[in-house]
Amino acid sequence: MVRIDGARLLTDLHDLARFGQVSTGVTRLPFSSDDLSAREWLRARMAAAGLAASIDPYGNVYGAVPGAGPAVLIGSHTDTVPQGGWLDGALGVMYGLEIARARLEQGQRDVDVVSFMDEEGTYLSFLGSRTFCGDMTDQELERTKGPGGRALAEVIRERKSLGAPARLDRDRHVAYLEAHIEQGPRLEAAQQRIGVVSAIVGIHRYRVSVEGQANHAGTTPMSMRRDAGATLIGVAAEVPQRFAAEAGAETVWNIGSMSFSPGVTNVVPAAATMSVEFRDTDVKLLDKLDGVLQDIAAAHSRARRLPVETSLVMQAEPVKMDERLAQAIATAVQGRGEEARFMASGAGHDAQILAQCLPAAMLFVPSIGGRSHTVTENTRDEDIVLGCQVLADAVERILTP
Amino acid sequence: MVRIDGARLLTDLHDLARFGQVSTGVTRLPFSSDDLSAREWLRARMAAAGLAASIDPYGNVYGAVPGAGPAVLIGSHTDTVPQGGWLDGALGVMYGLEIARARLEQGQRDVDVVSFMDEEGTYLSFLGSRTFCGDMTDQELERTKGPGGRALAEVIRERKSLGAPARLDRDRHVAYLEAHIEQGPRLEAAQQRIGVVSAIVGIHRYRVSVEGQANHAGTTPMSMRRDAGATLIGVAAEVPQRFAAEAGAETVWNIGSMSFSPGVTNVVPAAATMSVEFRDTDVKLLDKLDGVLQDIAAAHSRARRLPVETSLVMQAEPVKMDERLAQAIATAVQGRGEEARFMASGAGHDAQILAQCLPAAMLFVPSIGGRSHTVTENTRDEDIVLGCQVLADAVERILTP
Repeated sequence: MVRIDGARLLTDLHDLARFGQVSTGVTRLPFSSDDLSAREWLRARMAAAGLAASIDPYGNVYGAVPGAGPAVLIGSHTDTVPQGGWLDGALGVMYGLEIARARLEQGQRDVDVVSFMDEEGTYLSFLGSRTFCGDMTDQELERTKGPGGRALAEVIRERKSLGAPARLDRDRHVAYLEAHIEQGPRLEAAQQRIGVVSAIVGIHRYRVSVEGQANHAGTTPMSMRRDAGATLIGVAAEVPQRFAAEAGAETVWNIGSMSFSPGVTNVVPAAATMSVEFRDTDVKLLDKLDGVLQDIAAAHSRARRLPVETSLVMQAEPVKMDERLAQAIATAVQGRGEEARFMASGAGHDAQILAQCLPAAMLFVPSIGGRSHTVTENTRDEDIVLGCQVLADAVERILTP
Repeated sequence: MVRIDGARLLTDLHDLARFGQVSTGVTRLPFSSDDLSAREWLRARMAAAGLAASIDPYGNVYGAVPGAGPAVLIGSHTDTVPQGGWLDGALGVMYGLEIARARLEQGQRDVDVVSFMDEEGTYLSFLGSRTFCGDMTDQELERTKGPGGRALAEVIRERKSLGAPARLDRDRHVAYLEAHIEQGPRLEAAQQRIGVVSAIVGIHRYRVSVEGQANHAGTTPMSMRRDAGATLIGVAAEVPQRFAAEAGAETVWNIGSMSFSPGVTNVVPAAATMSVEFRDTDVKLLDKLDGVLQDIAAAHSRARRLPVETSLVMQAEPVKMDERLAQAIATAVQGRGEEARFMASGAGHDAQILAQCLPAAMLFVPSIGGRSHTVTENTRDEDIVLGCQVLADAVERILTP
């Protein structure tokens, strides 16, 4: 088995974390100067490791190992949310670099590395991985607005001197592997060190809105109100009751935002809106919850005689990871004396895009306190190093016939 | 009985509505140029009617009839909310002017007129009427910030060349009368043309806040969340159920604003806050509802193990109108062949301040569609004129021993 260099990996991760540093975290928004500087640094590190490395017009950093036959592609993303953590995305990219480098040092020319652009969806979720997989239209880029209202297509056109977009090569790439921090508390709570991702959840995301009428909250009798706020509260209160009854053990849902208009203490709300999302790996269950939400909305609309609208604003279907690859990771975990915990990913990852054209699998390392998308995000050094060694071991198993 | 001049009254009302006109409504924020121009116009109209009229440093416009013995004070306010209606406040002031003028024309020197400043509370609710009644401290004016963050006390100091503040004269003023649009739908729904206000409701206003913890809405199992939003929704949903059981027939309540932080679709809310207010003329009932709200908050706090805080942000006690004055208005209504509808005022008015030092009463005219605090606020011309005549008749009854 090829041994990775844990100290070198940690040094690289800390060096990358200087770009866009915000206390113990980072802000690297796509195409920002911090993001682009980090990508240029990464390209140089790939080149120093012996990879043919370039940054394409979409900002994807791709390092191809020279003279490869079949190759495993390893990567993730180096863009972040505002005031995000230093490992989210970065971990998976630096695992790729370390594994490609360690194998090259042993004469193994079989690992390519990639950092995708805008996984976080600051402008367009999975911009880089979708482009890499040929799943992006010019129309969508024209429709998507970047900073200052410029079309994302224009941002890309200005960067076209950087050459042809990096693309997946189905003749060369035999598998995509992505490591990531768990971003949740389950591994830590179970005192397990490695998660093997079995599937990435699907997400259905709704906006629920009620139209009522603004009225003076002192002079309008209760019976004569058309209260959009009270109606929406009724819908919102029923969501957890009904969802808990219908959902699976792993289903999660969230009402993350709620607001009333005009939003004034002494005015009966004229309009009210909230976001509702739910996630599961079972597409049938997601479809069932669509119906439950619509039932709740319709019942409250009838009872209050006010229009309650549910509009689907985002729908991502669940994606299963490749079983053979996942099993290779699990075997590698056991080979290092740890328990392999199979689990769903509750968050989206570039792997769900890659999985549509290539066998793909993911590995999780624990998040301290389950924290993510915050500067306090962290993972123990020994878990970071173990995760990389396990992924390196898995690569060897995957490439060995 | 002195006859008022309905056409002259309507002309004055329309002339006043040109100051700060916004389509069919007006915006006259306290101390704005539109507000001050309107007050100067009003002072001139008072002077033209034969009153000794002035504007004081607080912006109160006071017209005293020369040579009066005992006098009835009639008034309201000419400031408005942003994009408010043309009659809110203005109606009561112009009734005062028309009645003082009509009586002066008959040789009756017994009605003073006033337009108070900032009844709406743009800076400080009832600023003018509280000052007029000697119920204002310098400290409160220093604490209250005007536009640009200047202390209200400074705004007043700059205006001190305008002379001494207008003050209630307990030796002169025998009663305060205020007419106002109903701002609600009850008179119109009952096809009644005049409301006689029996009391002004008290208001208890709370901010209810929950502190939880932000978490990723995809990766945090439901059982491991500290969801401030879901907790607040639970409290909010219970308010109408519990209040309806405990409240009186006329009690009203409102949840006018609600918001979550960070307020993002895919983040479990870390904090959530809402406003809750309730109004009634019975102080014991208001106190009981305080307890109900605190019970609900405490129960949800226990069940969710999250802090739920209820903080009282405003408390105005109910104010009874003077029975003899109210009866004089009711008799005047009947004298004009209409039914006198006794009703509570669900909104606050300058009369509740004046009532603390002087017998005070109020008369309502219907609001078309119950609308107020909007440019679509309106009242039928014949109701406007009838209301003024009824109030003039009541003045005669009050002043006749």
